[in-house]
Order: sequence, then structure tokens, then C-alpha cells
Amino acid sequence: MTSPLDLPADHPFGPHHLPYGAISPSGDAAGVRLGVRVGDHALDLRAAAAGTPWAAALRGPTLNPFLELGPQAWAGLRGWLQERLVDEAGRDQLGAHLHPLDRVEVHLPFEVRDYVDFYASEQHATNVGRIFRPDGAALTPNWKHLPIGYHGRSSTVVVSGTDVVRPTGQRKGKDDPAPVFGPSVRLDIEAELGFVVGGSTPVGSRVEVDGALDHLFGVALFNDWSARDIQAWEYVPLGPFLGKSFASSIAAWITPMAALDAARVPLPVQDPEPLPYLRGSPGSVFGLDVTMEVAINGTVVSRPPYRELYWSPTQMLAHLTVNGAALTSGDLFASGTTSGPQKDTRGSLLELTWSGAEPLTLDDGTTRTFLEDGDTVTITATAPGPEGTVVGLAEVSGTIRPAR
Amino acid sequence: MTSPLDLPADHPFGPHHLPYGAISPSGDAAGVRLGVRVGDHALDLRAAAAGTPWAAALRGPTLNPFLELGPQAWAGLRGWLQERLVDEAGRDQLGAHLHPLDRVEVHLPFEVRDYVDFYASEQHATNVGRIFRPDGAALTPNWKHLPIGYHGRSSTVVVSGTDVVRPTGQRKGKDDPAPVFGPSVRLDIEAELGFVVGGSTPVGSRVEVDGALDHLFGVALFNDWSARDIQAWEYVPLGPFLGKSFASSIAAWITPMAALDAARVPLPVQDPEPLPYLRGSPGSVFGLDVTMEVAINGTVVSRPPYRELYWSPTQMLAHLTVNGAALTSGDLFASGTTSGPQKDTRGSLLELTWSGAEPLTLDDGTTRTFLEDGDTVTITATAPGPEGTVVGLAEVSGTIRPAR
Repeated sequence: MTSPLDLPADHPFGPHHLPYGAISPSGDAAGVRLGVRVGDHALDLRAAAAGTPWAAALRGPTLNPFLELGPQAWAGLRGWLQERLVDEAGRDQLGAHLHPLDRVEVHLPFEVRDYVDFYASEQHATNVGRIFRPDGAALTPNWKHLPIGYHGRSSTVVVSGTDVVRPTGQRKGKDDPAPVFGPSVRLDIEAELGFVVGGSTPVGSRVEVDGALDHLFGVALFNDWSARDIQAWEYVPLGPFLGKSFASSIAAWITPMAALDAARVPLPVQDPEPLPYLRGSPGSVFGLDVTMEVAINGTVVSRPPYRELYWSPTQMLAHLTVNGAALTSGDLFASGTTSGPQKDTRGSLLELTWSGAEPLTLDDGTTRTFLEDGDTVTITATAPGPEGTVVGLAEVSGTIRPAR
Repeated sequence: MTSPLDLPADHPFGPHHLPYGAISPSGDAAGVRLGVRVGDHALDLRAAAAGTPWAAALRGPTLNPFLELGPQAWAGLRGWLQERLVDEAGRDQLGAHLHPLDRVEVHLPFEVRDYVDFYASEQHATNVGRIFRPDGAALTPNWKHLPIGYHGRSSTVVVSGTDVVRPTGQRKGKDDPAPVFGPSVRLDIEAELGFVVGGSTPVGSRVEVDGALDHLFGVALFNDWSARDIQAWEYVPLGPFLGKSFASSIAAWITPMAALDAARVPLPVQDPEPLPYLRGSPGSVFGLDVTMEVAINGTVVSRPPYRELYWSPTQMLAHLTVNGAALTSGDLFASGTTSGPQKDTRGSLLELTWSGAEPLTLDDGTTRTFLEDGDTVTITATAPGPEGTVVGLAEVSGTIRPAR
């Protein structure tokens, strides 16, 4: 008998990947529990890991207790799973706890604590600067000295598959004498990577670039939905607020950082050289060779290359804590929109349509400047895995519902 | 025998007040539990409320489960306590669960979920605009149309009495050719009120101005410590980040909104009239007649009047959720710096010293532009209570420790 865990070597969710999620199997009254995706199945982790050293941290419906255990535990469980998956007896043992993916519902796999969004793509920041501040320099003077970031709303991070209600709010066009109120008419996406943080640190301490990987548990595709009209009117002087805080979608499966070891690539040249607290030992700053694909209603509209990002995730975390800010397991930081230099690699509609001036045509012949009700946006991505394998990051998807 | 609960009518922590906190009595191994401050004592709420309808929500070390119960429960427990406090038998009953305040340690009484800081004082925004953007209009065009706000870092909200480590980071003065790195040299305070939110709402829903009081559990003095040099360099274009996220201090005792019924006052005239979603029935928008006192090392340097604020807390909450943002019990939003029209009513050193140009002299003869290591900042406040009583808001205090 062939086990569903007996996967071809080129499967993007093979034993080299093993992303974590939260599932509730249909017809199973035992509720939400943690899972690991293997092939087209979800392994019930609560059941499979019973009796292991990590069992207590894996008993609940969220990853937060396991995140708190830190990198040795993360490597330990991953090694334990991989050992069993390469062995027939091990596969049989785990096979008793499998659920086909199409028979489970997915849930947000961790309670999001503090959520920060960075702005780490030079091409994106340049494009936005040109569009929003055409009379000034495209990049603000601080941009190449520090990874710019801001806090977002953690309670509106939703799991992939959750519908997104079009937000309502104030906007004021150039020609409007006063602000008007209503549903956003410039609803956009932002294709990003989200980084899930584990291992709490106390207020007043710092995480160095060299120690940042000990706090980077994993990565997930992230869509930071943005209402450009609300954002444009509200964001001076204190930054984005309601233009962002209505919803941000995260993939249902968190890829362990360890699964992306083979995807690490050098950063673009950082010039000027960053201040010492943003430098690290060789290898401690890196990009990730993750190529995303953004589709609207099935039409691929962009292929943003994450390897182009200017700042390393380890630099982002070092910057975030250099003032003594605490970390809590379940913190999430996102990269900011990923845009490459070519037009068809831009990570937002704002850039792809140049603020609406150059509409996109979808495969069904309709055109888009910004999103319409009913549109489904799906972001997928691949990255090189070990020994010629491929890591397929789990999709993040959401459908726009009309404003209430 | 006189009960310590037999308080003079003019006591600022009498039965008309009853703020909530979290305490651990010295030498009591039973750990952190919720408490109510009455006079100079803390009532052990876990013990006192055993057997009441709210007991289950009061068993843990944080208010979050009780916040989730909503306004009927808040009124119910408050009424239950007040009934007992006006009656000798009731006082005897509660008296068995009292701890003198000087024999308890206080703790953060709720787990802070999403934290938002507003910018609701016209005088403060005007002063800051003049200082930071001397060539532009003092108020940005959006200021009188919406309560400007941004998300802050929830995990660095600390309870009054916690030391504040001077943050380190990047700054760049006008004459610096490149940013420099080091401890902040412009460490400031912001005297604010924090509002504690109860009653979760789902993503995609809204809280109207008229319904906002059902989600406003209480009020606490709040000091949003600010590193002006870090902030000035980082905040364009995405708002304050590390200049704020190192620490914000909140009072140890949360005053129920109901204790401030007599302190409600009309707002200043809002001109232009806000959009309909920011209006409400008569009485649903209001200011609070809370007069603060800011002291540095015992010298009172300012008396900010909260009644001058432009936006009602109910408008802030309606704005925060108009885009469908979810609320979670334990959310916290702060008013922004409270500044009045007179110089000695400004709520930050940035304004009091006009960005350092006009130093303050303390009672010991020393001068201050910004805070020095070892400085202790204490904010207190009073408000009118029912029937001629006074509500004394619990202090928020913190001492600056040298950068690490």
C-alpha cells in the first residue's frame, strides 16, 4: 500500500518543506488543532506529536506556545518529523493522523501579537514616491539608512480564504472641496512576505542582526490590502491607519525559515553602508530567492521577485528592537510590497496601473485599475529548496465583498 | 472599630470611584490577582467577588475576560461593590479582603491588544506643526475632518512605576552630514488619557458614535514617552515607530467610565461640522473635565486640561472602526498629548520648552529642555465626581534609566 506520505521528490510540499498551520477536520468534533502540511494532506500535530518533548506546546489551537520554545525546539520537531517521513515505518506511524487537505478547514495558526509592516523594496518605495509626491525626491532621505516601518492592526490579520469586505471611509480627491464618505474606490493589494517571530524578549533589550535568526520562526505569503484613497487623505503626518487596518491576509501555512536555507541569496549592494547595528557577520544578512505570482481572477498580473528587496529580514528585526522594544511570540512583521524593476514584477495595482492611468486587461477581457467587488486575488510563490527541490509557499487568497 | 472602608466623602478614591487594577500582596504566594482600589487599600477582587455572577471572569490576573462581558457586567459589579460599601455589614464583608496599598505590588491590569494613539488636541497638533513644519500650515488639511491616529506597540505598554530605559537609535540633525547612532538626547513625555476597550467585535463591523460607550470600559493616565530626535528622522512617510515603541506608561488603576459621568463636558465647537459618521445623538460626544498635573522630580511643570480636546473618545472609537476594523477586549487607545492654550498647560517638553529653546527651571534650580537620566515624571489628575465629590485618577509615573 502506498502511503500519501510517499511523495515525489519534486513535490513543493515534501519533507523538505513542512509548513505549520491550524486545521479543523470536517466531522471531527475535537476542534481546531495544529497541523503540518505534507503533500496534499495535513498531519494532525496534536495527535502525531503526543509523547514528544514538544507535546505540551502543541496541544492548543495556536502556535504561540511552540513559538515561545525557540530555535532548538523548532529544529527538534522538524528533525523528528523528517526522520519519520524518510522511513517507511515512520510514515506508517504518522499516516494514522492524516487528513486530506480538501477535508479540513484552515484557521489563523497563531495569535498575532504586535504587527509591523516594513517598506523594504526600493522599487516599490521609488514608485510610490513618484506617484504620491511627484514634486519631491522619490525616496525620502532616511530610506537607505534604516528599514522604514510602522505598526499595523494585529486583530485584522485574517487567514487566507477569508472574504475581505470593501472598507468605507473618508477620501478627498484633488478637486473635491471637502472630504467625501463612502466605500473605497481604489482598493489595492500589496504582495509581501510576512515573518513570524518566536521567543519573547523583555522591554529594554535588543536583538542583534547576528541573533535575529533565533527569533525568525517562519515565513508566509501576505497580502496587505490597501485602500489608496483612504490612505492618501489620512496618512500625513502620522502614517497609514484606516487605509490598511480593515484586513491583511496571511497564508494558512507558515513555512519554517529552515526550509528556505537554500533560498538565501546576497542582498543588493547597500550603499551607503548601514550603521554598525544594521551590519552582521557574513551570512547574517540575506535576501530570499522567492518568486511570487499575483493573480486576479486567475489572470497572472505580476511576478514580484523577493530577492530584489533592499533590507534583510534580520536587519528589520534588529532595527525594530534597537530602541529596546520587546518581542512577543506571535509578533509578525511583513516586508512591505515586493516590487522588481520590470513593470510586470510590481507588487501593487497602484504601481502596475500607475495610479490607475494604465489599466490591466484580464484574461476575460475586462480591465482593472483597482479591485472590483467579487475579485479574487491569489498570491503564490516558489523558492529553491535543498538538493534541487522546490519549496512552494502556501497561497494567500481573498475575495472582495461589497461594502456594508 | 472603624473600617478602612469608612472613607470621608471627599476622598478621591471613595465608593464613587472604584478603579480596577492587578495586585500581588507582599508575602502572599497566591500570585497576581485583580483588585479594586478603595481609599488607601486594594480590595482583592478574586476573593471578594467569589460567588457573584462575574466571579469566573475575575479569577485570572488580567481584566480581559471581564472586559469581554460588556457594559451590563461592568455596571453590575460596580453596583454590587457600591451597595456593600455604603452599608456597614457590607463593609465588614469586603473588609476581610483588603490589603494596604503600600503592601502590594501593582501589575499591568490587562493584556494590551491593539494599541492606537490619537492626536486629538488642537493646541498640541498646532504647536508640533509649527515646530516640525515651520514653513507649512500648522494643522494638516485632514486634521479637523478626522481624528488622526496611528497604531503603536502594545507589548511595550508598561505599568506605572516601571523604569524607562533611554532608547538608542538613529538621529540626524539639520547639520549632520549623515545619521548618527546613540542614546536619544531629546527624550520627552506626552501627557495623555488612555481608554480601555471591552467587548470584541468581528472584522467587517463598525461601532457607531452612539454605541461607543458600550465599548469604553475605563480611563487611565498615560505617558507616551517619545524620543523626539529618533522620531524626527524616521517618521516621514509612514509615521512614528521607534521614537515611540520603547515604552508607554499607563496608570496601575483603571477608572471606570461610569465614575466620570459627572466630568462630561461639551466639546469645543467642531468647525467644519464632521461627516455624519462622526456625529451622534445629543450627549454621545463629549469632553472630559480632567485636569492633569505633570511633575518632573516633584516640580509641577504643566497642568494640561483634557476638556480642551477637539475630538470625543466616542468619535475616536467610531473612526477607528468605520473601515471595519475589529475590536478586541484589551484594546487601548490614547488621546494624544493633551495641551491647553496657555504655555503652562502644554503636555510635552517639546512644546513647554519650544523644542529646547526655552528651558524649564525645576525647584532644585536645575534646568531641563528634555529628560535627563534619573528624572522621574509623574502625572496625576482630578475630575469632578457625583454630588460634589472628586475623582482622583491614579498617577502614572516612571524614572529614566541610562541607555544600555
